[in-house]
Amino acid sequence: MTLLCRVQSVALCSLTRPQRLQKHIFMSVRMCTAKNESRRNWSKETGTRTNHWEWGATTAGVLLGLGSILIFDTHRRKVQAESEKEAVSSHFLPQYTRAEVKKHTNPSDRIWVTYAGEVFDITDFVDLHPGGKSKILLAAGGALEPFWALYGVHKSDHVLEILQEYKVGVISPDDKEEPLDFSDPYSGDPSRHPVLKVNSQKPFNAEPPLEMLTENFITPNVLFFKRNHLPVPNINPDEFQLIVERPPGAKQGKPLKLSLKDLKTKFSRHEVTVTLQCAGNRRSEMNAIKTVKGLDWGAGAISTARWAGVRLRDVLSDAGYTENTPNVQHVQFEGLDQDVTGTKYGASIPFRHAMSKDHEVLLAFEMNGEELPKDHGFPLRVIVPGVVGARNVKWLGRIIVSEEESSSHWQQNDYKGFNPNVDWDTVDFSSAPAIQELPVQSAITEPRPGEIITPDEDDGKVTIKGYAWSGGGREIVRVDVSLDGGKTWKVADLIGEEKKGLVWAWKLWQLEATIPAEDKEITIICKAIDSSYNMQPDTVAPIWNLRGVLNNAWHRVSVTVARDQH
Amino acid sequence: MTLLCRVQSVALCSLTRPQRLQKHIFMSVRMCTAKNESRRNWSKETGTRTNHWEWGATTAGVLLGLGSILIFDTHRRKVQAESEKEAVSSHFLPQYTRAEVKKHTNPSDRIWVTYAGEVFDITDFVDLHPGGKSKILLAAGGALEPFWALYGVHKSDHVLEILQEYKVGVISPDDKEEPLDFSDPYSGDPSRHPVLKVNSQKPFNAEPPLEMLTENFITPNVLFFKRNHLPVPNINPDEFQLIVERPPGAKQGKPLKLSLKDLKTKFSRHEVTVTLQCAGNRRSEMNAIKTVKGLDWGAGAISTARWAGVRLRDVLSDAGYTENTPNVQHVQFEGLDQDVTGTKYGASIPFRHAMSKDHEVLLAFEMNGEELPKDHGFPLRVIVPGVVGARNVKWLGRIIVSEEESSSHWQQNDYKGFNPNVDWDTVDFSSAPAIQELPVQSAITEPRPGEIITPDEDDGKVTIKGYAWSGGGREIVRVDVSLDGGKTWKVADLIGEEKKGLVWAWKLWQLEATIPAEDKEITIICKAIDSSYNMQPDTVAPIWNLRGVLNNAWHRVSVTVARDQH
Repeated sequence: MTLLCRVQSVALCSLTRPQRLQKHIFMSVRMCTAKNESRRNWSKETGTRTNHWEWGATTAGVLLGLGSILIFDTHRRKVQAESEKEAVSSHFLPQYTRAEVKKHTNPSDRIWVTYAGEVFDITDFVDLHPGGKSKILLAAGGALEPFWALYGVHKSDHVLEILQEYKVGVISPDDKEEPLDFSDPYSGDPSRHPVLKVNSQKPFNAEPPLEMLTENFITPNVLFFKRNHLPVPNINPDEFQLIVERPPGAKQGKPLKLSLKDLKTKFSRHEVTVTLQCAGNRRSEMNAIKTVKGLDWGAGAISTARWAGVRLRDVLSDAGYTENTPNVQHVQFEGLDQDVTGTKYGASIPFRHAMSKDHEVLLAFEMNGEELPKDHGFPLRVIVPGVVGARNVKWLGRIIVSEEESSSHWQQNDYKGFNPNVDWDTVDFSSAPAIQELPVQSAITEPRPGEIITPDEDDGKVTIKGYAWSGGGREIVRVDVSLDGGKTWKVADLIGEEKKGLVWAWKLWQLEATIPAEDKEITIICKAIDSSYNMQPDTVAPIWNLRGVLNNAWHRVSVTVARDQH
Repeated sequence: MTLLCRVQSVALCSLTRPQRLQKHIFMSVRMCTAKNESRRNWSKETGTRTNHWEWGATTAGVLLGLGSILIFDTHRRKVQAESEKEAVSSHFLPQYTRAEVKKHTNPSDRIWVTYAGEVFDITDFVDLHPGGKSKILLAAGGALEPFWALYGVHKSDHVLEILQEYKVGVISPDDKEEPLDFSDPYSGDPSRHPVLKVNSQKPFNAEPPLEMLTENFITPNVLFFKRNHLPVPNINPDEFQLIVERPPGAKQGKPLKLSLKDLKTKFSRHEVTVTLQCAGNRRSEMNAIKTVKGLDWGAGAISTARWAGVRLRDVLSDAGYTENTPNVQHVQFEGLDQDVTGTKYGASIPFRHAMSKDHEVLLAFEMNGEELPKDHGFPLRVIVPGVVGARNVKWLGRIIVSEEESSSHWQQNDYKGFNPNVDWDTVDFSSAPAIQELPVQSAITEPRPGEIITPDEDDGKVTIKGYAWSGGGREIVRVDVSLDGGKTWKVADLIGEEKKGLVWAWKLWQLEATIPAEDKEITIICKAIDSSYNMQPDTVAPIWNLRGVLNNAWHRVSVTVARDQH
């Protein structure tokens, strides 16, 4: 599934952007056919509510591959003689540091990238990039390797050949990575993909660019949003032990100590596709109204993965608990991440929720078929489907079955919602329940705010894309999109996983919409409806709260419409 | 609980209305003390999220009783001599028909009521009524008995004595009830309380006045909203049999036939407090924007009762089903109510939902401690907590466990939500899921739209009341109220039942709010937040749909502010 999505994503990102430039590049009739075919498959003609990836995507992918080869061939012919000359002199190219490369991120400073220790000025190539200008610019000022790792189509001799045309230097052999500062508690943090938009370096908090987020139904691990509260702990998996315990004096259940091997061999493996969202997703829109306390997340603090592990309910059963065990109300989770005073991250969920077969709460050790990455809780984390990210405790060290909620700061004095007129002088954290299930949510990922969009010259249509999700297992049943600021609404096509019962994963959505010929500036709005027919509120101000959590107002993106002059 | 609420309700309705008149009547210092005490108990000083009925209500009730006696005593002294004279001449009083009485409903025509075959002109008493003018006017033009049955305080010789003062005639002995028309399929329908606002007589659909709805946490059976799709069937409880069956060819489960006695003796009794809401509640606000198809419900198509019966899951287990039975997805319910062609009412819920212990789906034979009333499904109905009224099938005759949803009109081509731009030419009912769990909802029940409200002359405060509820077991965690059209919000006090786990009953709410001295016209708005932090949408138009269902936009009530001239 992941592989298929990635192949599709490459096709999609180029097919769905109305690109004047591409029209000049892709002279192949077959390419245009693929574009139209893709659009037809997105139309409402099937009459079904949810379309699963059915776009004839493989065809499009193959054709795009051909298209790429065509471009590269054109280039090859054009520069063949010159590159042969240049190859001779490449040993004498200037040397640059990575810091110098980093300054070259826009056309006026020239756009530089690095690959395998060499420096390239790709300013004249960005408009020719088959994957679209915006995608290649994500690498500007840095290394290409992390992006090519995401987009397999680049792994070809043709691409490397073309790249050589733009070589302007090499990385200085003296430019070493900064040595680690072992007095820095964050020195053990892993390296991260450069495309992430970093909201905080220490602790590390970052989100993927929105246009990349909805390229794939399953978010690649490197792009999955990162939300750390503390330094990433360094855990030896061979020595790791999960402790299951009860509070002093409690009589139910029995304490357990489980190694990773115990977990993997004593309990059934279970897999589930789950979307996680930070309570602060889209906080920046609340910040724009009145300053809130918290990281300034855009709409990218949400991602979807296929998680594998064992059911929490099975582990609790092994510890002697049943659904009817009296005097237990909560299951507390304690992370192995800690601050300088030794205070560990912690959270809890209701015991009823933890024991529910339907709710599929997982102790996960795999993410998208790989060992859990360090940033996502290696070697073990909790996955609580449908529940706010903050309760999905990473680097899980201890489980405590209790009459009480977790007493942690994050359970008691954070991650709660308040009336918009409550301020830091009047807030009483004990008056609001800890956030568990999240409300219905949706956002537009393409186009981006302020973007100049070009409707198709034949039918005047543009492509609008986004995601929608709801907590508590409530499936998204409809996404409405307005191109006139909310006066009229169209129904978007949905893409999702087929699943019976409670649904934990998002739906991606797409709409091919006609823009009236006279419109120059438009505001695009989306709103989703879940299976409880919950609707999103219209505006942000009435749900504003001092922590900037739970922003699920209609998402608005204003763009300028450019008419194709060709 | 019911009894306590009723006693409180009498206290509340007089205490919380800012009444100039009452201030002159209730000279008792003790009465004023009770009023202030009540308000203090409503204040936020406890710091707890939900206040349960804790108002010192018994005290207030007793004091109100004393207050009532004081008024009646004042009157008695004033009219003693005259009434003695009148008693002599009462045999010669004029005779009226009920139709004639019905014309006297406002001061210009005089306000008449009947009691025990006598007619009273209470025009001069309405302003003196201890329960408030609006309450006594609900009986104008009709009989007092149905109201006195709701308000036990009237059952006293003092009240009857006072009433005699206003006697103006007797009901004509020739004024008989209309004989039943047995060719009318609705001739077997029961009689209903006259206070109900009737939206359709045949089939009978009616809602209680909003100011009465939130007097009680548990809605009295006679006031509980009635939503019939067909004539009320006449069922002999001794011959009644519930049939549990499987579709032809299905192999799981075994057919059952259960008498009422079987149900009551073979299965454990289970009780649960559940709020039911019609999907069309508040449809009139959608109608005001653009005409929709459906009964013009106000905000009263919601009520709460304590239901008793047996668990559906127990009956299905007896029929051989378990949570893991393969190839069953839905449980269909068929009513014994039918149209002239023999088509019966029907609906279904997911099998997973029916078998869930947490969801407490009930086959109910009692409502608020009484046998199920005819209008509410006598002798047996389904109660599906947290789910739209339409699936709570009344007069239940047959249960079918199936791979398929109910094929009934009401499951397939009704009770579904659509995008606001879908009309009757374009609607495709198969594209939307049948409504099951309902979204978060709230409404203002006092004051009423257009009412002239008088803030307390000391503190400038008024009392605002309403209800809030959400489907799916999601508890109401907060109600925000705005007195300035949505610019600022205050948190209302909540009244509810203490319950762990999923919560099926509404919260009543109340706010004592200060109105700025300069305001003459204000718009009051309420919005509720449920335990998934779902919010209500701001406005009706973007959620408008051709069937006028699922209106859960903010509820708005505009009123005029009168300043006390005393």
